[in-house]
Amino acid sequence: MLDEAAEDTDMTDTHLDPRRVGRILAAVETGDAGRLEEFLDGLHPADIADLLEQIDESEREAFLRLWAGDSVGEVLSELDEGLREDVISLLDPERLQAAVRDLDTDDVVDLVEDLEDVQKEAILDALEDVDRYAVEQALGYPEDTAGRLMQRDVVTAPEDWTVGQMIDFLRDNEDLPDQFYHVTLVDPRMVPLGNVTLGRMLSARRSVMLRDLTEETFIPIHATESGENVAYAFNQYHLISTPVVDDGGRLVGVITIDDAMIVLSDEHEEDILRLAGVGDASMSDNVMETVRVRLPWLAVNLGTAILASVVISQFENVLASVVALAVLMPIVASMGGNAGTQALTVAVRALATRDLTGSNMLRVVRREALVGLVNGVAFAVVMGVIGWAWFGSAVIGAVLGAAMIINLLVAGLSGILIPVVLERLKLDPALASGTFVTTVTDVVGFFAFLGLATQVLL
Amino acid sequence: MLDEAAEDTDMTDTHLDPRRVGRILAAVETGDAGRLEEFLDGLHPADIADLLEQIDESEREAFLRLWAGDSVGEVLSELDEGLREDVISLLDPERLQAAVRDLDTDDVVDLVEDLEDVQKEAILDALEDVDRYAVEQALGYPEDTAGRLMQRDVVTAPEDWTVGQMIDFLRDNEDLPDQFYHVTLVDPRMVPLGNVTLGRMLSARRSVMLRDLTEETFIPIHATESGENVAYAFNQYHLISTPVVDDGGRLVGVITIDDAMIVLSDEHEEDILRLAGVGDASMSDNVMETVRVRLPWLAVNLGTAILASVVISQFENVLASVVALAVLMPIVASMGGNAGTQALTVAVRALATRDLTGSNMLRVVRREALVGLVNGVAFAVVMGVIGWAWFGSAVIGAVLGAAMIINLLVAGLSGILIPVVLERLKLDPALASGTFVTTVTDVVGFFAFLGLATQVLL
Repeated sequence: MLDEAAEDTDMTDTHLDPRRVGRILAAVETGDAGRLEEFLDGLHPADIADLLEQIDESEREAFLRLWAGDSVGEVLSELDEGLREDVISLLDPERLQAAVRDLDTDDVVDLVEDLEDVQKEAILDALEDVDRYAVEQALGYPEDTAGRLMQRDVVTAPEDWTVGQMIDFLRDNEDLPDQFYHVTLVDPRMVPLGNVTLGRMLSARRSVMLRDLTEETFIPIHATESGENVAYAFNQYHLISTPVVDDGGRLVGVITIDDAMIVLSDEHEEDILRLAGVGDASMSDNVMETVRVRLPWLAVNLGTAILASVVISQFENVLASVVALAVLMPIVASMGGNAGTQALTVAVRALATRDLTGSNMLRVVRREALVGLVNGVAFAVVMGVIGWAWFGSAVIGAVLGAAMIINLLVAGLSGILIPVVLERLKLDPALASGTFVTTVTDVVGFFAFLGLATQVLL
Repeated sequence: MLDEAAEDTDMTDTHLDPRRVGRILAAVETGDAGRLEEFLDGLHPADIADLLEQIDESEREAFLRLWAGDSVGEVLSELDEGLREDVISLLDPERLQAAVRDLDTDDVVDLVEDLEDVQKEAILDALEDVDRYAVEQALGYPEDTAGRLMQRDVVTAPEDWTVGQMIDFLRDNEDLPDQFYHVTLVDPRMVPLGNVTLGRMLSARRSVMLRDLTEETFIPIHATESGENVAYAFNQYHLISTPVVDDGGRLVGVITIDDAMIVLSDEHEEDILRLAGVGDASMSDNVMETVRVRLPWLAVNLGTAILASVVISQFENVLASVVALAVLMPIVASMGGNAGTQALTVAVRALATRDLTGSNMLRVVRREALVGLVNGVAFAVVMGVIGWAWFGSAVIGAVLGAAMIINLLVAGLSGILIPVVLERLKLDPALASGTFVTTVTDVVGFFAFLGLATQVLL
């Protein structure tokens, strides 16, 4: 036991290391179902899903033909969305239907919402009527809302029950959800009134009223609330589970923290990828899928790069006579782009975590302007000296320094203002800010540097 | 009730909107403690912490002088680390000590670990002996490990207990943790054997053995395991709470999902900021703190920008004779930089989420090379035509196209290989990849474009 426990805790290696993947693939290749089971033994469905994501298409096909494990449903719901359709189409229909019958309704919703109609119908047909009704009702809510995330099975109690009545009810009830953390008190119209944690209930006497045990923090969520707001509420208020209500304030489901954690991870992922101009990405995407995602962003960047070149072309005269300018001009643009990216990343994050609000906006804008100015002056001095020393011209050094100050100030301001304006326009600041900010810093950088140079050198 | 519930669910506005902040600040300015309490009413400690982060230093001071609320401890533990020292030093010592006595030991650990010794001692002195011992033991583990995150109070049971025995024990125990979700079964040496969820326990008869109710997924974590691995395990295996063990495999504490969620958020935050060359950032940082964080990264970028300029300066001859090259060369560098950033962001994320492993490395590298090549050819055609049309020279168009292919191929390869190599060297790929990748794409871009131009145009 002791050794096992010690081994279990070494999470970096045990679960799905490359050696284990290699062995699994070898068993698949030789068609040895017994060895395959042996190597899969102890792997969590999430690990098997990771395995499917890491191997290539033909290996995946061979694996699914050979594997007879009974956690297909869980593996599907852990799988990257981009791969689900492929894997579902590889599964025997009967096996698929048996698999989804084991899932909670919220997992079924998550599974079918992106499937094509034929696959969706096949899965819905496999469900019992009551589950099918729950899934279809959830699918009636808009994508990425609380209604889609929620689990329909909620453990509720009338507000006048005692701990003893509740425990007796739970013991007699065969059909409880797999995981639940609260009992939700409701009025006769099913409006939720409060949550009682199981821990407090277990440590109270049987005669205690449930309503005397309710938690202080109680935040019912409307079914049409966005997933982003749900994740925010769980994170901000340390919720474990919280009731979902309809327009009439009546209970329609419950969201638990594992769902909120997934939304939170997805939001972060989306932010980070969008900031880099990658819409959506997975390690299992093939070449053309990847090109399709990345090419549009590069095309946008090409447009802005051409814009910058047009600015440069206005100064062909001065470039032709002082070639040092062509050598130095990328420095001004590059420093501006980097300073702008710093400011905008901080702003995009602060908007996402709601740390940047109307209350501190002015102060933050002033700060970014000052930071840009301070950094600008610091690098103006450095680059002024370098420019002077390199090309033996104090004038070039001075022009370089002045352009640096202008561009870093503009970088700071555009880095904060562009995401804020996009947010006000209800656009995702993570998606478009980067392109706008570097366009501004490129154009301003080249214009300031070459424009000043034209004034003093020609 | 109905209206209240409906209002509660509108999470975007109710809790801490700018208008409420304005009213709170007005009450603080006029020194009206009654109005202040009124406007703070219903705010969660996390919201009050957000408020403190959003207002400026003098407002913070005035607020803390006026505010007499009793959730100081919770507010402190919700507060941004950078602000805690400031706020603690503004609090009356007795109030501070009363506040920390109300906190769970894991929150006290989180609170004191970054404080200076004097403040730390003051807080430790306020604790009861048993809590102080727990906090000091946790502080004995390295920073950012499971030992620091864990709560000492664990609800345990001998493995031969029944549900009935456990419920009686819980009812008789005055000193249970605020929140607990499992009972952990232990052997006589305190080695954890399994977790029983409270839900399963509540729905079982009193005579059922606890060991017949244990959960399938049971992953004890070693106290020295990194916070990153803890967050990974919670996310991957949907844990709610899990025991922490020492070298002997014995139970020393428990980590709950709210702690893991915070670590996960922090890791994401760190990744996104590091990718942008911002080490650490908070909206409440002042100008000089912000400059201190950002200037070093800009200095590194300056170094790489100068390197690119040195490359350009090798081609002064061709630049002086064909000024069109100076106009077009930033396009090649910019496209390379963007394509490289796309590839590296996907790689950094996949390394962080463990989706990029030895098993799929070769396939992903090949994919990135092919994606770079496909995008390179696509944009080579577009830019070749544009370059030709703009400057009336097919040769310039051809040189531009060829340089584009070379640079996008290099961008894809360096975008995947640089983060992977940094990870192998145990460096954080998020921290340094961006600089390396854009240096490579700048240098290769300028060298390829101007070098080819020298060959064919001079």
